[in-house]
Amino acid sequence: MMAETHDPNLETFVSIPENSDFPIQNLPYGIFSKSDADKAVGVRIGDHVLDLSKLYKDKHLDGIGIHDNVFDRAYLNDFMEMGKNYWQKTRLRISRLLRKGSAIEAEAKRYLYPISSLEVHLPVFVRDYTDFYSSEEHATNVGKMFRPNGDPLLPNWKHLPVGYHGRASSIIVSGTDIHRPKGQTKPKEDEPPVFGPSQRMDFELEMAFITGTASELGEAITTQEAENHIFGMVLFNDWSARDLQKWEYVPLGPFLGKNFASSISPWIVTLDALEPFRTASPKQDPEVLPYLKCNANHAFDINLQVYLQPEAGKENLICRSNFKHMYWNIAQQLAHHTVNGCNIGVGDMYGSGTISGKTEDSFGSMLELSWAGTKPLKLNDGSERKFLQDNDTVIMRGYAQKDGLRIGFGEVRTKLLPTK
Amino acid sequence: MMAETHDPNLETFVSIPENSDFPIQNLPYGIFSKSDADKAVGVRIGDHVLDLSKLYKDKHLDGIGIHDNVFDRAYLNDFMEMGKNYWQKTRLRISRLLRKGSAIEAEAKRYLYPISSLEVHLPVFVRDYTDFYSSEEHATNVGKMFRPNGDPLLPNWKHLPVGYHGRASSIIVSGTDIHRPKGQTKPKEDEPPVFGPSQRMDFELEMAFITGTASELGEAITTQEAENHIFGMVLFNDWSARDLQKWEYVPLGPFLGKNFASSISPWIVTLDALEPFRTASPKQDPEVLPYLKCNANHAFDINLQVYLQPEAGKENLICRSNFKHMYWNIAQQLAHHTVNGCNIGVGDMYGSGTISGKTEDSFGSMLELSWAGTKPLKLNDGSERKFLQDNDTVIMRGYAQKDGLRIGFGEVRTKLLPTK
Repeated sequence: MMAETHDPNLETFVSIPENSDFPIQNLPYGIFSKSDADKAVGVRIGDHVLDLSKLYKDKHLDGIGIHDNVFDRAYLNDFMEMGKNYWQKTRLRISRLLRKGSAIEAEAKRYLYPISSLEVHLPVFVRDYTDFYSSEEHATNVGKMFRPNGDPLLPNWKHLPVGYHGRASSIIVSGTDIHRPKGQTKPKEDEPPVFGPSQRMDFELEMAFITGTASELGEAITTQEAENHIFGMVLFNDWSARDLQKWEYVPLGPFLGKNFASSISPWIVTLDALEPFRTASPKQDPEVLPYLKCNANHAFDINLQVYLQPEAGKENLICRSNFKHMYWNIAQQLAHHTVNGCNIGVGDMYGSGTISGKTEDSFGSMLELSWAGTKPLKLNDGSERKFLQDNDTVIMRGYAQKDGLRIGFGEVRTKLLPTK
Repeated sequence: MMAETHDPNLETFVSIPENSDFPIQNLPYGIFSKSDADKAVGVRIGDHVLDLSKLYKDKHLDGIGIHDNVFDRAYLNDFMEMGKNYWQKTRLRISRLLRKGSAIEAEAKRYLYPISSLEVHLPVFVRDYTDFYSSEEHATNVGKMFRPNGDPLLPNWKHLPVGYHGRASSIIVSGTDIHRPKGQTKPKEDEPPVFGPSQRMDFELEMAFITGTASELGEAITTQEAENHIFGMVLFNDWSARDLQKWEYVPLGPFLGKNFASSISPWIVTLDALEPFRTASPKQDPEVLPYLKCNANHAFDINLQVYLQPEAGKENLICRSNFKHMYWNIAQQLAHHTVNGCNIGVGDMYGSGTISGKTEDSFGSMLELSWAGTKPLKLNDGSERKFLQDNDTVIMRGYAQKDGLRIGFGEVRTKLLPTK
């Protein structure tokens, strides 16, 4: 059934700009509002948004088995909670409604709004948020910088997908500016800590998957079952204040250095849309324990870029990476997270950890790109950066592309304003 | 206004058992259900629960300014969100309704149900959960065990209240059994990790405060403002699988060693009820940074006990401690948590960290009581414990007492079942 929805030859009546991230084969979900109306669930296509709540009211979504307007909501959670069978039936229906000659083509303006006329919102109520640390290259880079005389990878790293709990409340959508956070740092080894704005502001290039269905406390989800719980993915900027983090994080992990904000892209790309881009993960050596073994590919070939735009300046491409570099895949992450019986929820977000590649231009954070400030980045306006400056905007983009089909995530864009 | 509600001479028409934790001066909030009805907000008094939803419907709560039945809910969040002014007005009204000669005395059975006839539920939807590490004695004990050759306290510990994010989804109410979790451990230094049930199951004696009103992203809450956001407190058992934790926690902190369950007592005791037991915190040296200074007392004198009950055996009192031992108080914890702009939510839970005192019988975990398994605890049935055994029940109790007034928390009771 699903193969039909990513046929590259599908033709839609909606005008799609060249190289759009959002052809009819993508159909990512989000939350939008018109100036005179409440929030509702929409699907992005080209530069338009399809209003699912209105489609539902007009009975264009009848027959799927959805008997309550779960699209007339401020978050996607109620729709997600229905489960994968409903996600797939809805996707197929939307794909058919958007094709040339469909039942809604003649009255398309009733359901399709230009993206420029809308406000776009956080797509899910984030129930719990976990961040993993699953790129070998990133973990190795951090290890080399912080433990120059030891093995860059810690002993547990290749045996389990290291992760930690993050703050759900401060996850924000693309376009929301943030302020440089204040906090305690210890700039001089032999002097007491000081209080003030962070001097080492950084981004982290990540992706995150979002679970759409819950599990019970005590229930473990296998690597085989994991993707049935996963609704889709977004781009994720795990903002980091390196100087706050350095002083606080031993022994219990990152806290105020991270929890002031994490930014996501607004359109959730489903695993169904990403299906054509499934690929193998890096070989794992040593062999993993049985509960972490997979009998299918759970990695995806997604090109990722980070751009830094100074105030009133142009975009600088500062990083090119790929999601397929991750040593631990999403099925392993979810299986590990639940192997002790930890219950997952509708709307949980799971960050990948910084996605760095092997080459210096593929490093996914300023910390790595400037090698802890020792190799400043040169920007196209002649300025330099060790870490981020006030009014810098960080833009992350991502897309998968193959055989003329491009499935993209759009962008997550956040401006760093000065301390309040 | 509030002094009236903790007058030790108040007389209620409800029969209160001797030494009850729940006299008319306490009035803690929770969620209950009768066998034939939905969940609703109740207030515990003696061995009865007062049905606030029914009181509201019958107009006994008129005049407070609550224009929607926020008590006809499965969680306290909607009531809490109204703010401290409403919490205090409601408390005063309930106190008056429960006194001898009140408007409801003649029809008391309509609103008061025996606790034995009810089911009691998780009182709040936990939005985010943070665990602190604020007992100097606990942090010192852990330091001595794990870093025997170094300074037991890490350099940051006396400068900031160390904390980390926990898992909100797995917080459960007293009376909910848990299963021994499985996971990766590394029992032998020079052999690969193994998978199986945790062999070092432990409790941690904590208390937690719950925020009732939110803050905006970017907004810092001062130590002076902190208590305006705090609705009340509960007993908190921060279940820990020490062997899972040891292998996983470097460098990003506790994860699967903690997130399989945390148990709380069902009745939220308000800060208003605790007011008579306010006391000074331990002196802080070195002096803390200005944002952590307090101009009032934010500690409370609350006696705490832990009991271990083997299957079919009697309760053993294994720990006596006191909440006033905490080096960092609740106002400092909330001020620190938000100083970087992290936003708090309605229903956030903030654990204190294990509450250990200076003497060996006041240590708040098996890890400390058995000194990492080197000094097994002797129980009254002749058996010994290094860590918990299957079918052990852990019971934590707490109460404040002074001048004939006892304000208690009841208990948090959890049975550890074998691995599923």
